[in-house]
Amino acid sequence: MQIWRRSFATSVGRLTHSSINSRPSIVRCAQILQASKNGGVSSFEDQEIKVNGFIRSVRKQKRFAFAEISDGSTVEPLQAILKPAQAADLSTGTAIEISGIWKACPPGKEQSHELQTTDVKVVGASDPETFPIQKKYHSPDFLRQIPHLRIRTPFNSLLSRFRSECMFQLGNVFHSHPDGAFTQVQPPLITSSDCEGAGETFTLAPRGAATPSTENEHFFRAPKYLTVSSQLHLEAYAAELGNVWTLTPVFRAEKSDTPRHLSEFYMLEAEVNFMSDLDSLTGLVEHLLRDLTRRLYNTTVGQEILSAKRSGEPGQESSAEETGSLRQRWIDLMDGPKWHRVTYTQAVEMLQRAVAEDGASFEHPPTWDGGLQLEHEKYIVEVLHQGRPVFVTDYPKSVKPFYMAPSQVPDGSNTPGETVACFDLLLPEVSEVAGGSLREHRLPDLIQNMREHGLIKPRQIPESGDPASGESLYPHLTPDEDLGHLQWYADLRRWGSAPHGGFGLGFDRFLGYLTGVSSVRDIVSFPRYFGRADC
Amino acid sequence: MQIWRRSFATSVGRLTHSSINSRPSIVRCAQILQASKNGGVSSFEDQEIKVNGFIRSVRKQKRFAFAEISDGSTVEPLQAILKPAQAADLSTGTAIEISGIWKACPPGKEQSHELQTTDVKVVGASDPETFPIQKKYHSPDFLRQIPHLRIRTPFNSLLSRFRSECMFQLGNVFHSHPDGAFTQVQPPLITSSDCEGAGETFTLAPRGAATPSTENEHFFRAPKYLTVSSQLHLEAYAAELGNVWTLTPVFRAEKSDTPRHLSEFYMLEAEVNFMSDLDSLTGLVEHLLRDLTRRLYNTTVGQEILSAKRSGEPGQESSAEETGSLRQRWIDLMDGPKWHRVTYTQAVEMLQRAVAEDGASFEHPPTWDGGLQLEHEKYIVEVLHQGRPVFVTDYPKSVKPFYMAPSQVPDGSNTPGETVACFDLLLPEVSEVAGGSLREHRLPDLIQNMREHGLIKPRQIPESGDPASGESLYPHLTPDEDLGHLQWYADLRRWGSAPHGGFGLGFDRFLGYLTGVSSVRDIVSFPRYFGRADC
Repeated sequence: MQIWRRSFATSVGRLTHSSINSRPSIVRCAQILQASKNGGVSSFEDQEIKVNGFIRSVRKQKRFAFAEISDGSTVEPLQAILKPAQAADLSTGTAIEISGIWKACPPGKEQSHELQTTDVKVVGASDPETFPIQKKYHSPDFLRQIPHLRIRTPFNSLLSRFRSECMFQLGNVFHSHPDGAFTQVQPPLITSSDCEGAGETFTLAPRGAATPSTENEHFFRAPKYLTVSSQLHLEAYAAELGNVWTLTPVFRAEKSDTPRHLSEFYMLEAEVNFMSDLDSLTGLVEHLLRDLTRRLYNTTVGQEILSAKRSGEPGQESSAEETGSLRQRWIDLMDGPKWHRVTYTQAVEMLQRAVAEDGASFEHPPTWDGGLQLEHEKYIVEVLHQGRPVFVTDYPKSVKPFYMAPSQVPDGSNTPGETVACFDLLLPEVSEVAGGSLREHRLPDLIQNMREHGLIKPRQIPESGDPASGESLYPHLTPDEDLGHLQWYADLRRWGSAPHGGFGLGFDRFLGYLTGVSSVRDIVSFPRYFGRADC
Repeated sequence: MQIWRRSFATSVGRLTHSSINSRPSIVRCAQILQASKNGGVSSFEDQEIKVNGFIRSVRKQKRFAFAEISDGSTVEPLQAILKPAQAADLSTGTAIEISGIWKACPPGKEQSHELQTTDVKVVGASDPETFPIQKKYHSPDFLRQIPHLRIRTPFNSLLSRFRSECMFQLGNVFHSHPDGAFTQVQPPLITSSDCEGAGETFTLAPRGAATPSTENEHFFRAPKYLTVSSQLHLEAYAAELGNVWTLTPVFRAEKSDTPRHLSEFYMLEAEVNFMSDLDSLTGLVEHLLRDLTRRLYNTTVGQEILSAKRSGEPGQESSAEETGSLRQRWIDLMDGPKWHRVTYTQAVEMLQRAVAEDGASFEHPPTWDGGLQLEHEKYIVEVLHQGRPVFVTDYPKSVKPFYMAPSQVPDGSNTPGETVACFDLLLPEVSEVAGGSLREHRLPDLIQNMREHGLIKPRQIPESGDPASGESLYPHLTPDEDLGHLQWYADLRRWGSAPHGGFGLGFDRFLGYLTGVSSVRDIVSFPRYFGRADC
């Protein structure tokens, strides 16, 4: 303390001098703290700096006050020391402009440097009695009720910066893909197409508009929905541009009440033309996710996530085990051996064997016709594949949408045509995180699939028209069939249709996996789900 | 031709040899053509290459056929020469995998190199009789009816790649901002808040759901809308993160039929905390747009836009004048003098003087109370400011939303408090492209603004409750007032609220300005507007 007081006096003298010449420049906490760790000429040591930020906590003693200051640029607080009078109006949350000299601390202090405050100005007061965000543990349930303030906890602030870095690095991943840059597109969200066929879409209408009695009374002259997937539109782009991607909101009106589902979430989707085997597609997904993780690992914010406190609970660092296992998760993603591929049929057989031989028990006994339940997916990835990523491929045609191409290498045990060339990517904890397929690129086969899925409508025959009169007939349709609002999609197969495939990845789920946050409701800042859309 | 035939024979010999060792790798047209322009070792000359692409046109002669091939990676076609038998099944649009030797052309040919085809495989046939995209002029009106195929014209394909490059470079602009990286956020699209107060929003409901008779019957337990602007949510992020931005879809249920409006469009929005003067905000906007334009100028796709054919009309290059003026537009954006700032009051006076002294005539005579019509904006930017970007600032409070802060430097001619600290950025041709403001960051003043805008609701007093009973009362409200669904927004001012500001820019309009495309319906691949939402 003796040393410190001497240097404080010296620096105040210096300050008076320097402040005549120039005002201190505003610096972000991340920059100061990072530079101080690295040392060297850019360490700001003994320089006057100014920070715009917030009081995270303040401790007032008789001769000095100590404040932790944050400006949202890093989880680590900046330590400031003030005179009691300077700290009089400060409490948790107060917005301040604070200037001072950045001094090295004597050995033994937790922080290497601290700000010796010369001036502090309150620009926005905070009432400590009512401010819901305090320097203490807040449960996720509590924080979800105040999403507009939840951002202000250190860990949630970090999550926002991590998402931002993910988006930035995603741009780099696709821009520098070895097969050539992917084109990022912005497909429409208002659409006629329910591409998953599940019907759980939101419909939209101008506020206060009367319920339309005819098609023409609709705002868009027909009912429209919020997209559940951009795949169909991506295929239109890919047919020209080759390789395309998008990160776009999608909407599902599901009444699910699970930590894995939201009504509004971001989907990362990509589509590649001239792709004719499923291995290329799973290989692409694996390459992209490894590349993204590797780039994130090399960023400051990536490293912050790997060592950050959880759930805004100060003082409670992640246990070594937790931090270690999260880091191991990233390393496995980046550098682990090639991810496993297992066909659906093999997976079902393995599950059945597990029941028969290893005493595994499931609520729904695994059957080939029954599809995979969440409990099955979890067992496949966590037990059968030791918690490592696994692609389950070639699902039964009967449980998948109309646009998928048939499997090229059917299991010996299956009838050809019984399965489709698709995959789900399973990760531990979050389970299904991505799904994709080769698309049926042949017009007659696509139309036959649509017929089987009941997507072809009876044709409206004009009174004066001859239904069978040549030119107006769409190829491969009978005179009384109509493709309706999907004709444009079939059109993509009429003139120069190459084999192609693509996938969609639940971006929020993947962020949850990377950050170790188990509910997407805590990954998305303003989550929307059945019964809840706060703010 | 003599020379060429000799080299063809030689290369076929070479090919046979090389094909024993390895299959030719797939290369993108952009890469081949760019490398050939640069020359040198990576020019692919005399190497065997393979391209996956489409026939843009084919010309069949007796001894040879000539094809223009495109794969969506560049506007420039790759020229291939084939034997007649190889070209038999080729027509405009055909999807092919084509291999050959990349040979220098004899001097005098339009192209420097051409592909001497060794093998061509049709992977998707095209019927030239019915394919709507031919190598000829297509009017924008015609192309708008087939947005799913419009992408396949050279110029529209280029527009998609240009948009992609814009998004990528935007990421760089914000990531490397001199004041520190901006955090990119993904605010919700489903919201209760109509932040512009215009009421022209879309409401949403699960498909097929009955009209709710009580609040609790709504999917989200209250009516929800598609966002018209993310500003309110951005303020919540900025209050923690400092500088934030988003590029996000917004929705307006306007029945406008203009080339400047869509019902679904992308908005670039940014919000900056600790910002207390309007000059900093307009300075930020100017910096960002200059930086973005400069980065785009230095890309291949940027240069393609500056010299590209328009409207998919092959053979009709932009006239030197058109290309020149578009390039000049970019140079003005990047390197021109500081953009003008003019207050609204000054602008109205200038318009009135133009009417009185210069014979200008307007449908709506300019008045201070009347706001600026499109005709006024056009005159301000195109005549009064010689077609250079101009910020019009400090509009009357009465014509602007509730959240704006009062002007700091009111015109001498105005009563203090009569105008607000806001701006519209006007560009020639597209007119208003961005708008922003400082936000009222003081809680009592914000609440007073809300009161004046009729945004405060009568309080629902519980039967058993005492309306005036202390703690449950929100500060600065009377006992019978309620902030309703905007309470969270007011909350942002309760605990540590600093002066801040931000803006929104019509991303599609700005792309139209950069590309010289005059209608946003031709800038957006799948445009949605009153009466139209194809595909």
